[in-house]
Amino acid sequence: MLEQLKEAVWAANLELPRLGLVDFTWGNVSGRDPATGSIVIKPSGVPYETMKAGDMVVVDAEGRVIEGALCPSSDLPTHVELYRHFPSIGGIVHTHSSWATVWAQACRGIPALGTTHADYFHGEIPCTRPLSEAQTAHRYEAETGLSIVARFREGNLDPENVPAVLVANHGPFAWGADAHAATHNAAVLELVARMAMFSLRIDPNLPPMPQHLLDRHFFRKHGPGAYYGQIRHQMTAGQKTVK
Amino acid sequence: MLEQLKEAVWAANLELPRLGLVDFTWGNVSGRDPATGSIVIKPSGVPYETMKAGDMVVVDAEGRVIEGALCPSSDLPTHVELYRHFPSIGGIVHTHSSWATVWAQACRGIPALGTTHADYFHGEIPCTRPLSEAQTAHRYEAETGLSIVARFREGNLDPENVPAVLVANHGPFAWGADAHAATHNAAVLELVARMAMFSLRIDPNLPPMPQHLLDRHFFRKHGPGAYYGQIRHQMTAGQKTVK
Amino acid sequence: MLEQLKEAVWAANLELPRLGLVDFTWGNVSGRDPATGSIVIKPSGVPYETMKAGDMVVVDAEGRVIEGALCPSSDLPTHVELYRHFPSIGGIVHTHSSWATVWAQACRGIPALGTTHADYFHGEIPCTRPLSEAQTAHRYEAETGLSIVARFREGNLDPENVPAVLVANHGPFAWGADAHAATHNAAVLELVARMAMFSLRIDPNLPPMPQHLLDRHFFRKHGPGAYYGQIRHQMTAGQKTVK
Amino acid sequence: MLEQLKEAVWAANLELPRLGLVDFTWGNVSGRDPATGSIVIKPSGVPYETMKAGDMVVVDAEGRVIEGALCPSSDLPTHVELYRHFPSIGGIVHTHSSWATVWAQACRGIPALGTTHADYFHGEIPCTRPLSEAQTAHRYEAETGLSIVARFREGNLDPENVPAVLVANHGPFAWGADAHAATHNAAVLELVARMAMFSLRIDPNLPPMPQHLLDRHFFRKHGPGAYYGQIRHQMTAGQKTVK
Repeated sequence: MLEQLKEAVWAANLELPRLGLVDFTWGNVSGRDPATGSIVIKPSGVPYETMKAGDMVVVDAEGRVIEGALCPSSDLPTHVELYRHFPSIGGIVHTHSSWATVWAQACRGIPALGTTHADYFHGEIPCTRPLSEAQTAHRYEAETGLSIVARFREGNLDPENVPAVLVANHGPFAWGADAHAATHNAAVLELVARMAMFSLRIDPNLPPMPQHLLDRHFFRKHGPGAYYGQIRHQMTAGQKTVK
Repeated sequence: MLEQLKEAVWAANLELPRLGLVDFTWGNVSGRDPATGSIVIKPSGVPYETMKAGDMVVVDAEGRVIEGALCPSSDLPTHVELYRHFPSIGGIVHTHSSWATVWAQACRGIPALGTTHADYFHGEIPCTRPLSEAQTAHRYEAETGLSIVARFREGNLDPENVPAVLVANHGPFAWGADAHAATHNAAVLELVARMAMFSLRIDPNLPPMPQHLLDRHFFRKHGPGAYYGQIRHQMTAGQKTVK
Repeated sequence: MLEQLKEAVWAANLELPRLGLVDFTWGNVSGRDPATGSIVIKPSGVPYETMKAGDMVVVDAEGRVIEGALCPSSDLPTHVELYRHFPSIGGIVHTHSSWATVWAQACRGIPALGTTHADYFHGEIPCTRPLSEAQTAHRYEAETGLSIVARFREGNLDPENVPAVLVANHGPFAWGADAHAATHNAAVLELVARMAMFSLRIDPNLPPMPQHLLDRHFFRKHGPGAYYGQIRHQMTAGQKTVK
Repeated sequence: MLEQLKEAVWAANLELPRLGLVDFTWGNVSGRDPATGSIVIKPSGVPYETMKAGDMVVVDAEGRVIEGALCPSSDLPTHVELYRHFPSIGGIVHTHSSWATVWAQACRGIPALGTTHADYFHGEIPCTRPLSEAQTAHRYEAETGLSIVARFREGNLDPENVPAVLVANHGPFAWGADAHAATHNAAVLELVARMAMFSLRIDPNLPPMPQHLLDRHFFRKHGPGAYYGQIRHQMTAGQKTVK
């Protein structure tokens, strides 16, 4: 079942090492079937080199395995909560990519400092609040997802306009319209994280970029007034074009 | 038309990923035909892997498309203003290359700290003033070009002696005698940006290099007294040899 | 003798340049035969490109050469002390990998700042006390090993829970259940060292991660409650699963 | 003439890009013929990809061209002064390798912080004093060499024990017993420069490593008591073994 989605999720997983976003098996991509709400996700701890499309695990919207011989990624409950609360997204990526993780470990959001950031993220990429001892002890991975949802609600953030987050003391999650778009956003996040890190070394008191420039660049690529690229819906996978 | 220039501009665009200056489709190179003033530029949002010389777009000196099936790069109006105001240049490159962008995001020019810098740039590589809300709202890309021109006028800078600039909160533009020379200068800019960044971490109060050393190195490679390399006009594409 | 162990130790040595952990000949891996306590180790100063499994040197538990035409690594006495005092380990790696060495040169342990660290190391990766002039003058390499043992005793650290150390003004040692596991831990150490370095640049006063999150991640992969990966004993070589 | 030396110098030049020490044509290696004192050096501004052994230029001990169709590297007078004043060396490398240049631009020597440094350099790698305006104006490249010689005399440094230097606001020179050894020392310098840079970010007040550890490591590989590697004279090209 969902063979096409399995292929897409498998291919998106293979993009992670190619993009330099994962070491060893530390990363997972999932995709959601819009018709049924079923989720296809990478199996846990399987090396990328030998992983096949058929190894992808199919679970229902609650995360119960429907098909697949292998255990799903141990981060599955985080994916499930994100899909539940962010209905417009179709793909999720989790990595420990170095520069985004550097920020996550510092428990700081990545400020919007330039147009590379603004082309993909409409404002700071936030960092979650730390989990309590109780949240860590029980349903840890699901609580991780809920802490992301809480952070977006608290910041009044739209997951389509800010398609990534940092989990405190952990690492990034990124998402998008589908698995490939999520992977692309994860790659941009990594580049943006590195550049922001060093811009702030030059000037530790650097303010965020002007709001009007942030708006201009984000809405140059996203939303009804977009004019970047050749064909509107090819431009930037990962966000709907209508806000 | 301008098939040779299209080949050269296409080749210069392909150099960008090879030199590590672009990720995805984030970069564009243009070249100007000295006879007609027509500009050949990369199309918008087309992947480097599949781009062909015939995909290059030809526009007139005002930026109106003369030939080409695809939309030109959305940064075209910036290129047009630079060609208009810097008559001696024949090629322009825009990238979001990481280290130059780190400085652009910090809204700081790159000071001349060593002879690698001095071999190509006769002094600080300046950063533009931020655009106002009005400039960002209307003719944003053209205003970006005009802010570069204004910065050079304000600093009394000669674009042949300082063949690159940082656009505040955005990224670098570099130029040269032709598209290839512009690409080479963009690559040197990136190396220089990285080294300056870290030299200043060792000593945050580091002054610029001595003026006499800056002069010596720049004019060792540029101008009538040049003595570097085998043949004068092969030495350093990107600048005229007579000041 | 011990041909299988020689193959494994040779293969683990070859992983070092592939993982970016060594330059030139600066690194060595050893493995211990559980039956006899004999140690197989890389010869000294032999290039990785031409090294063969048969070049591995076999020594007894005291470090006396039993078999092999070449001199063993000059760091052998350090390995011998570690095997003697850490009876559960079966493989040791020494490198001058850049980021771990950056910390060793600063004579600082690497604090646990995130789950990447916590998945492999249950707390700070400690740095040894400097050797005295007398310890450096006599039996330097053996004293290096003893300084590691002393640091673990002093910190009440279990080498199975913290499978790596930094030797002050020198570089890292890592270990594990066998040579391959030790190599894997050395690679993770390097990643963790780099990320911690930069997280602390963002916030120099950053505290370690919460203890409950450290525990959760370490024991998610190690010990009787582990639930990561497909098969328990494939998960994370380098630690026994029962504490 | 000197065909064997030309081959060796050519091969050493080709090592530079392979070791990541040069971009474009920015680097040169020379070697000295012990019998005649003649020097073989890379031609100026020739790309590494097309350079042949026969392109190497032969000059006498005063730097006058004896053989070769191309102009020698413009840095030749620096090489000539180093050979003249450091009689025991047989090869010299000049690059603008990034991390060594970062230190040179900061006009700071690289302190000895760890054993990687101590294995090759017996103490700080010094930085020259800046050249005066007059020195820069006349015989600039020769004065550069003389400033290196002056710095070694001032610091009472033995070029065999410290086989590299940083030229202020410029970049590194390294040397050794022959061209290959010089190249190897240049590569180690680059690694050491990077690690020292970051160790000092962790602790800006970090003192140099203990003198006894510095001595131990340097003399473990150099001098009559050396015991590293398989055969004494294979160990570390770049230094004589007897002090």
